[in-house]
Amino acid sequence: MIYLTRKEHFCASHVLSNPKFSEKENFEIYGKCANPHGHGHNYEIEVTVAGEPDKDTGMILDLKKLSEIIEKEIIDKVDHKHLNIDVDFLKGILPTAENLAMAFWKILKPKIEAGKLYSIKVSETTNNFAEYRGE
Amino acid sequence: MIYLTRKEHFCASHVLSNPKFSEKENFEIYGKCANPHGHGHNYEIEVTVAGEPDKDTGMILDLKKLSEIIEKEIIDKVDHKHLNIDVDFLKGILPTAENLAMAFWKILKPKIEAGKLYSIKVSETTNNFAEYRGE
Amino acid sequence: MIYLTRKEHFCASHVLSNPKFSEKENFEIYGKCANPHGHGHNYEIEVTVAGEPDKDTGMILDLKKLSEIIEKEIIDKVDHKHLNIDVDFLKGILPTAENLAMAFWKILKPKIEAGKLYSIKVSETTNNFAEYRGE
Amino acid sequence: MIYLTRKEHFCASHVLSNPKFSEKENFEIYGKCANPHGHGHNYEIEVTVAGEPDKDTGMILDLKKLSEIIEKEIIDKVDHKHLNIDVDFLKGILPTAENLAMAFWKILKPKIEAGKLYSIKVSETTNNFAEYRGE
Amino acid sequence: MIYLTRKEHFCASHVLSNPKFSEKENFEIYGKCANPHGHGHNYEIEVTVAGEPDKDTGMILDLKKLSEIIEKEIIDKVDHKHLNIDVDFLKGILPTAENLAMAFWKILKPKIEAGKLYSIKVSETTNNFAEYRGE
Amino acid sequence: MIYLTRKEHFCASHVLSNPKFSEKENFEIYGKCANPHGHGHNYEIEVTVAGEPDKDTGMILDLKKLSEIIEKEIIDKVDHKHLNIDVDFLKGILPTAENLAMAFWKILKPKIEAGKLYSIKVSETTNNFAEYRGE
Repeated sequence: MIYLTRKEHFCASHVLSNPKFSEKENFEIYGKCANPHGHGHNYEIEVTVAGEPDKDTGMILDLKKLSEIIEKEIIDKVDHKHLNIDVDFLKGILPTAENLAMAFWKILKPKIEAGKLYSIKVSETTNNFAEYRGE
Repeated sequence: MIYLTRKEHFCASHVLSNPKFSEKENFEIYGKCANPHGHGHNYEIEVTVAGEPDKDTGMILDLKKLSEIIEKEIIDKVDHKHLNIDVDFLKGILPTAENLAMAFWKILKPKIEAGKLYSIKVSETTNNFAEYRGE
Repeated sequence: MIYLTRKEHFCASHVLSNPKFSEKENFEIYGKCANPHGHGHNYEIEVTVAGEPDKDTGMILDLKKLSEIIEKEIIDKVDHKHLNIDVDFLKGILPTAENLAMAFWKILKPKIEAGKLYSIKVSETTNNFAEYRGE
Repeated sequence: MIYLTRKEHFCASHVLSNPKFSEKENFEIYGKCANPHGHGHNYEIEVTVAGEPDKDTGMILDLKKLSEIIEKEIIDKVDHKHLNIDVDFLKGILPTAENLAMAFWKILKPKIEAGKLYSIKVSETTNNFAEYRGE
Repeated sequence: MIYLTRKEHFCASHVLSNPKFSEKENFEIYGKCANPHGHGHNYEIEVTVAGEPDKDTGMILDLKKLSEIIEKEIIDKVDHKHLNIDVDFLKGILPTAENLAMAFWKILKPKIEAGKLYSIKVSETTNNFAEYRGE
Repeated sequence: MIYLTRKEHFCASHVLSNPKFSEKENFEIYGKCANPHGHGHNYEIEVTVAGEPDKDTGMILDLKKLSEIIEKEIIDKVDHKHLNIDVDFLKGILPTAENLAMAFWKILKPKIEAGKLYSIKVSETTNNFAEYRGE
């Protein structure tokens, strides 16, 4: 069993603020992340697929194809976008790193044709990141 | 003469779009950076001061004080903000990396008490950055 | 289940040398790390908490609060310190990366109020690091 | 139980191309990686050993000795080499990151004298990497 | 005057060995870099253009267009290639970092339509790099 | 003219504290860097040599030889050392990044046999660094 990872990047803005809460409550919960005009990040997404390398190709799956899937299904929809406003598959989802990892998992899970999706890690900064393994 | 540098970080969103231009023109000029809801970056700012180290302290200026100046004058005003909307000193300035470097220079220039401000470098991503040296 | 990580940094010096051993033995075991006046590192500590994101906040716990806990309980006590001499909670503990990870775990374990402490990783350099998961 | 990691580097070239397949098939499967004159990478290898730190030394094993083992058994044989041609222990093995991780495991497994080899991670670039845990 | 930089990446192999010299001389001069089957790197190229930002666009030139020029003129020709064999514009040029920087300069110089090409920096590894400024 | 750079690393401890000043003054000037038992860093040193590549070798000077010079003259003397106590050529010099860059320059200047020493950059952390160009 090999764990094979492809990392991709996107730049996006988001706001952490739940309409359920008052503005005061949102600032108490999310601090400066609740600034209503938003802020942004250079996000990184690491997609790990687990599987046995094919005897002939030496690969679980082609990293270039994995890259193309991530580009098509995720990056093209979130790059240079406002995650609270511009992204269909995030409607109604507060775009924390935790929720992004789970939302990306739902989209990518059925698209991985060889091996098994093992983990999705979303980094907001080099100091803050969330990983989801479908558990 | 020593060139002493302090790097700081901030997360912000911006839009590249000039009200002078039509929406179509803005997309032609700025591509996906013109997305009206904005996108964001983990910005880095490198401030370089040139000077002679003091004989007794071995320092041009205290990097912690330089850090505090950058924090107070720049980071506190731009971190977790929308650069087109939330920042007083950027009113009327299109927040490209080029313009940010020049705007930060104007603010920091009179605040450096020892040595001379030599360069300000603003990175939007690890692949894109602009440097201004007051020339 | 999400694995949420916050990375913090500190600069410290240490010596690897056990008073049980002779100077000769210490140099045999620890090589140049046994230099009695010490040497230092830019340490990184990655604290990972596992849990379910809250339905309303979208977060397991607030990364800013996690950061404040790590700052207060760990960083304030070890940053710009000599780990063999200056740190109360390391008295009698040889400050290898392995032992630091376990010592930090003991301190942080009872302070994590939401989710469960999953892992602590301590890096001495980008090439050397130790991870403890409470096993 | 501590997971202790040492990272090493080497620069090598490789071709992804299986003599079983026609040139056309190889380009279909491996894309530009099938270029017959080869291309290269700054590879990183992370070797993780799991074990209990020794009560007296505070270490599972000496990272310098681990580094020397990796240097002698792996790096000296692959650094500045063509992985398809120059490396005895890779004869008949297509040098994908997956296969490299497994080949390095076979070599290092019997050489680890303290603790247990837990994982080998091979990075071709910062965006592409494979991990093998002996499963 | 702003110095605006775009960084791009490519993976390639090369050999440092001059047909003028004997094999023995080549190994004396270039050490393990003279291995005849080649070795490789994840190269980075930083292209810096100097100029005045346009009053209306806030840009010297569009970084995306600069990126496209570098991709078309350089990356498409060297990525996943053997620099001694596969690249027309490097025929007869020993592909040291120094020579690559100068060869890339010759190609890019006439393609920069706004601002002036200021510097090209070529990194073989994070520890080895060469910069050319047309002097 | 090419600017060729080699980066090396060392781990060391230091104290910023001048015996001329009282303990109180030292803490006022240097903050937590004045902690008498010292703290440490993973230092980086970048040595840049300027010159014309040799027509036959394509190199200004051999980076491996430059690396060996830096290792022998600098790294072997400062790595895993206390910079205020253990290093002969730093006696009487307060080991700020500024002073280290100038002290390293003095040592390396006469050892560079091809090209001319152009710059020495010393990084204490990724956020703090000093560069000296012999001016």
